[in-house]
Amino acid sequence: MSDLSSTIFYKIIQGELPCYKVYEDEDFFVILDKFPSSLGHCLIMPKTPARNIFDLDEKSAQGLYPLAKRIATAVKSVVGADGVHILQNNEAEADQTVFYFHLHIIPRHKNDGVRLGKPMAGITDDKMEQIAQEIRKGLAK
Amino acid sequence: MSDLSSTIFYKIIQGELPCYKVYEDEDFFVILDKFPSSLGHCLIMPKTPARNIFDLDEKSAQGLYPLAKRIATAVKSVVGADGVHILQNNEAEADQTVFYFHLHIIPRHKNDGVRLGKPMAGITDDKMEQIAQEIRKGLAK
Repeated sequence: MSDLSSTIFYKIIQGELPCYKVYEDEDFFVILDKFPSSLGHCLIMPKTPARNIFDLDEKSAQGLYPLAKRIATAVKSVVGADGVHILQNNEAEADQTVFYFHLHIIPRHKNDGVRLGKPMAGITDDKMEQIAQEIRKGLAK
Repeated sequence: MSDLSSTIFYKIIQGELPCYKVYEDEDFFVILDKFPSSLGHCLIMPKTPARNIFDLDEKSAQGLYPLAKRIATAVKSVVGADGVHILQNNEAEADQTVFYFHLHIIPRHKNDGVRLGKPMAGITDDKMEQIAQEIRKGLAK
């Protein structure tokens, strides 16, 4: 577990590092990606530590997609997206960069030029906080 | 439901179109992607018809990731992959091309040059059938 507890996502879940929190329950923690591919790009992380899909526990696996549906629906509404990618990378050769399980929810608009893995430019901290707040409100409906 | 029943994936699940079948149970149907990004590229589809994540039923949502973990683990072993992407696109603006829910499992090797959405070249029907058979065997272990 030592390598998992040293990851930024573990520390964010523990409250040791700041984040734009979107949602939390007994099993999951959801934040805005600090380097979003598009506005509203969220990450779902299980509280039970896992490196990636290969060691994900059964309860987290079962709860993941029902929550992804809720978050994707709220994000789509808040940013007025036309579509949404769900992406979850496992190991460095598949573009995993933080070795604590995280599932990306990436909203898309027509002709937005978004490329997966490429951060968007020009987003401010104020805008991030505003979007996080709107998604929290959307989820509370 | 009429637009879902006209999709190729609905027809494959019904047995009306051929496929390289990898796995089937009460809730899910898994095949090789006919235009794989890499060797072993699989698609998981729920038997309860859904267009995408936004109308996915609760039981399919709960079962999806536990099965994705099983399939990803077997595929990784069979093709000797270093990593695996899990990708699920929702609506045309997020690169969905067949409008019946499907989750991609895409194995990766170091420096393989794979690009998501770009089919690999040079794979034969015999090779596809061989890989499907090996994954079926891997899942049965």
